[in-house]
Amino acid sequence: MDSKVTYNDLVIIGAGLAGLMAAVWASRLRLDARILDDKVERIQYGRADGLHVRTLEILDSFGMANAINQRAYQLREICSWNPDPDDDCKIQRTERIRAKEEERGRSCQLGIHQGFIEQNFIDFIQREGRIHIERNTKTKSLQLEDALMADHTAHPICLRIERTAGNGNTADEVRTPHEEIIKARYLIGADGGHSWTRDQIGLRIDGGKTKVHFGVLDIVPITDFPDIRVSCSIHSTKTGSTMTFPREDRLVRFYVPLAETGSEGDDFDTSKVTPEMIAEKASQILFPFDRGNRVFLVGDAIHTHSPTMGAGMNVSMQDSYNLVWKLGQVIKGVAQPGILDTYNDERQSVARRLIEMDREMCEFYEKGAGSDAHNYDEFYERFRTFLSGVGVEYGPNALVVPAREDDLWDSKPCTDLDSSRCRRRHSRRSLASRISIGQRLPSFLVLNHAEANIVHAHSMLPADGRWCQLVLAGVISKPAQMARLKTLCERLDADSSNLRTYTPEGDKANSVIEVLTIHAAPRRKVELFGLPELLRPFDPELGYDYWRCYANNNEGEEGDFDDAYAKWGVDKDEGCLLVIRPDQYVSLLCRLQEVEEVKQFFSTILVPHKRRKTIAAALEA
Amino acid sequence: MDSKVTYNDLVIIGAGLAGLMAAVWASRLRLDARILDDKVERIQYGRADGLHVRTLEILDSFGMANAINQRAYQLREICSWNPDPDDDCKIQRTERIRAKEEERGRSCQLGIHQGFIEQNFIDFIQREGRIHIERNTKTKSLQLEDALMADHTAHPICLRIERTAGNGNTADEVRTPHEEIIKARYLIGADGGHSWTRDQIGLRIDGGKTKVHFGVLDIVPITDFPDIRVSCSIHSTKTGSTMTFPREDRLVRFYVPLAETGSEGDDFDTSKVTPEMIAEKASQILFPFDRGNRVFLVGDAIHTHSPTMGAGMNVSMQDSYNLVWKLGQVIKGVAQPGILDTYNDERQSVARRLIEMDREMCEFYEKGAGSDAHNYDEFYERFRTFLSGVGVEYGPNALVVPAREDDLWDSKPCTDLDSSRCRRRHSRRSLASRISIGQRLPSFLVLNHAEANIVHAHSMLPADGRWCQLVLAGVISKPAQMARLKTLCERLDADSSNLRTYTPEGDKANSVIEVLTIHAAPRRKVELFGLPELLRPFDPELGYDYWRCYANNNEGEEGDFDDAYAKWGVDKDEGCLLVIRPDQYVSLLCRLQEVEEVKQFFSTILVPHKRRKTIAAALEA
Repeated sequence: MDSKVTYNDLVIIGAGLAGLMAAVWASRLRLDARILDDKVERIQYGRADGLHVRTLEILDSFGMANAINQRAYQLREICSWNPDPDDDCKIQRTERIRAKEEERGRSCQLGIHQGFIEQNFIDFIQREGRIHIERNTKTKSLQLEDALMADHTAHPICLRIERTAGNGNTADEVRTPHEEIIKARYLIGADGGHSWTRDQIGLRIDGGKTKVHFGVLDIVPITDFPDIRVSCSIHSTKTGSTMTFPREDRLVRFYVPLAETGSEGDDFDTSKVTPEMIAEKASQILFPFDRGNRVFLVGDAIHTHSPTMGAGMNVSMQDSYNLVWKLGQVIKGVAQPGILDTYNDERQSVARRLIEMDREMCEFYEKGAGSDAHNYDEFYERFRTFLSGVGVEYGPNALVVPAREDDLWDSKPCTDLDSSRCRRRHSRRSLASRISIGQRLPSFLVLNHAEANIVHAHSMLPADGRWCQLVLAGVISKPAQMARLKTLCERLDADSSNLRTYTPEGDKANSVIEVLTIHAAPRRKVELFGLPELLRPFDPELGYDYWRCYANNNEGEEGDFDDAYAKWGVDKDEGCLLVIRPDQYVSLLCRLQEVEEVKQFFSTILVPHKRRKTIAAALEA
Repeated sequence: MDSKVTYNDLVIIGAGLAGLMAAVWASRLRLDARILDDKVERIQYGRADGLHVRTLEILDSFGMANAINQRAYQLREICSWNPDPDDDCKIQRTERIRAKEEERGRSCQLGIHQGFIEQNFIDFIQREGRIHIERNTKTKSLQLEDALMADHTAHPICLRIERTAGNGNTADEVRTPHEEIIKARYLIGADGGHSWTRDQIGLRIDGGKTKVHFGVLDIVPITDFPDIRVSCSIHSTKTGSTMTFPREDRLVRFYVPLAETGSEGDDFDTSKVTPEMIAEKASQILFPFDRGNRVFLVGDAIHTHSPTMGAGMNVSMQDSYNLVWKLGQVIKGVAQPGILDTYNDERQSVARRLIEMDREMCEFYEKGAGSDAHNYDEFYERFRTFLSGVGVEYGPNALVVPAREDDLWDSKPCTDLDSSRCRRRHSRRSLASRISIGQRLPSFLVLNHAEANIVHAHSMLPADGRWCQLVLAGVISKPAQMARLKTLCERLDADSSNLRTYTPEGDKANSVIEVLTIHAAPRRKVELFGLPELLRPFDPELGYDYWRCYANNNEGEEGDFDDAYAKWGVDKDEGCLLVIRPDQYVSLLCRLQEVEEVKQFFSTILVPHKRRKTIAAALEA
């Protein structure tokens, strides 16, 4: 039987959390993408349940946070229970720890079952109507044509799939042949711990398993234990250790360490583990996250860990969030294929830290009631920033130009993707002393200049695949600062500017790079129409754009929003210019006058629209 | 042709905003209710667009606020523009006024089209699946059997309806006969300004029209007028007056006064209008909101006003919100039919104030650029509290026991519904000096004792038809105060208590009256299981109820929630006991020791469950 052959830019294998997140991004970016899953329907509940601050921010960037926030359990307190020294048959509360995650972001940690999040993703994909989740679809073989791998306009991936009957979509069954061959430019393996994709590209994860096995149990407990509705770390002399985490709908999850198994060999004595040993071990078991920048692994397909971290859902979704905007830009010809290197670079280092912390956490529970257990606050504090996801820091690499202590710029600008040469360029940390380059932009409440409406800075940066030049314009009610802003805007708008170089003719000027402003003048002293038109551009159909200029709340005098400049450590008389990636991470920080540096940055990663036409022609040929 | 005859407890005529809100309540209360509409589908947009603070609280009590908040325009600023004194061909901004509604509630005023709210109501009703919106259904005749009107177990309403084909629901069409007679216990006329129901019961609204007619225009303006995205009051010498109000999706609504018409007679000189004249006029045109406590009019069917107030949606929905929980309690036999009197009493006074303010607002725009126009802030301030809806005050009546200045109780308790006698009882205002009896309970952020989660006090009071005894228990870490609380709980839980008297045997103890606690002890000094079981009751299936006990943030020391006691004016060493209606209005305020007063209050309005059985038997006969 001759199979039908179809050509697609992107194929996602697996419609679990990581795969669905990839499909959500692909749908939003209007990619020619497909998502396949061998099961009949989504899992009902799923094993994961903890949702961290950064993950909620990501969901919010797709407009999905409200529904989840409304349903989820919110973690506000963690209690530590230990044996009563007077009677070790009993346990007593030794610590209450306030879960301070909300200070790091806009939310606290949530407890919600994986199935609910997946349903939100499915609803999103169906509402946008561009991608159809192909269930009951098995992958049969995967071949890579080596000769085509370097040509990013080619389709080097050959995937043979087979759809069995009974996927519930009758119209689809009739139209779709039984077997199909997909030629794809890129492939994402989101097919879980026993990843078929991973096997096909010759990777095998075998080490890295801890000796401790955890049992996870979701129940509606009927108990008079007073801390049942907060998260607890419980050590008891008689019955061992337990961790609890409350959930939505009266549920509580219990993590119980089970008997050890000797999978790592008998000479592995956990009492002798040092941090160095853990780090060494972790690096041994980490495989590359991609194959030739054409096949990418996300989620459980590439990293595993115990359930104690509550990290499962988060790291998986964040893998896909990190990857797909880059793929989208390369597929569309907006960015150079070299940026795909950063996926492995950025996510592997996250996975490494996750594995380290996971081992440490497991040991904590394995050890039982000891001295550590009585300082749970200190112990937990070490994990907090990383686990919440807001402490994740990327780079230096092609997409992140880090700060240097001495704040000097190298005179010789970087002109290509060679990272050893790029490292000579630096962001100016002192301009925004509390913004970390390579971390996501911390979000504070700012005021829309035209509507006087209070919004989170992140709401200005929705997940739409665009870069952002964020102009922190300073006190523009002062004539000198306004003059500086006008000069900046002239340069941003010049023929040779980033906006003109990378935006295809006929597209809106902000279709590749958005320009947003937050000024620090008293709002009453600035008229929107006194600003350069670039900052409140005109569209013949829609009128002026009133949603690109915002005001800071200087010294908190103007109402119920933030002095974001102070919180970001930005001088109001100086201001600064930030380049922000489509995933809200900060790439570059420089002076308002340093437009050249921004141009240099983009020149190493984006493709001028004139060259893009050539690529498009090659693709069609 | 013999028509089918059906018996229903409640029929709602009209599926606009007021009717749908009534149906939402009826669905939530599981009433045997129907809603009829003569149109094929809901209006697409609708004329109303302003949503005030109190209305959003009401929507939130049904879990609908988030979706609306996410979509709507948020009003944060109002600007006043007037002729330039140097060149009256020009106008200039003379004032900026911060829209301070959020200080009165949890939100600001919103701009969102009526159709969106209606769709949320329709979705809610369909999701609950208990009530089907019967469209294409015409009302043909309405008769009231006078002999049955006084018997609230009878069905004195005889409504003949006719359903035409093509309502899109095929299964339904087949099953339903063409004509039907509904015998109903209660009827709500929510059929708009030209209300058929109103005509049938012999009411005619004819006066009360202002001479000024407003044109209302929704457009996406393309303009460089700088304040187009805030609400403006504009007076120009050359082109008259305009009011603007921005909306969702780039829309802006313009209110333009058109030519006057002489409908009120030529001797009505608006320049000579005094407040007294307006009040007199208003009272003349107000008709009773009900007929014999069996047929009720809500929304535009009973009050009309100009669009300038942005009050249309709000007052209509609030009518239904006020009415239907009372109807529900009477239909179920929980409350005495006499409480239905309070609907006319409470909503007519609101309508009266609305008409007064509406006239004042119309005159303001009619007068044009004058001295008033330059003090828009002062002018608007007079309207603010009432318009936001949070200033609405009900009673004194059977459901509201007001405060008296001298704070003394009459020694002789009230024993029936005769309002002249009830007025001898009083709430003790000094116990909660900033809570107004007869207004809705102001909501602040409190901490759930078991989960340490921060929630709004209103979230403890969802729209589920239950009364609430809110125990502000004070500093219960002090033994004397804890003893007082225990005594209170013993009395609340005694055989002769409200909970036992009014809750049917076999039902959960809180099915009619909920008991909620907010204590003012440091949370760490109180264990949930040290509280009387009434405040964290046990259910054999669900376990303990962790969502009924909350903590206050004394002096704001414990985190990011409120010192609600201070904001309510409650002494932390004294505490108090509040009775709150199912619509969140405060009925009664007394000391923790004064359980007898609460019993007296409920005895005049509720029906003991033992007597209810007799009524149920009569209904079945």
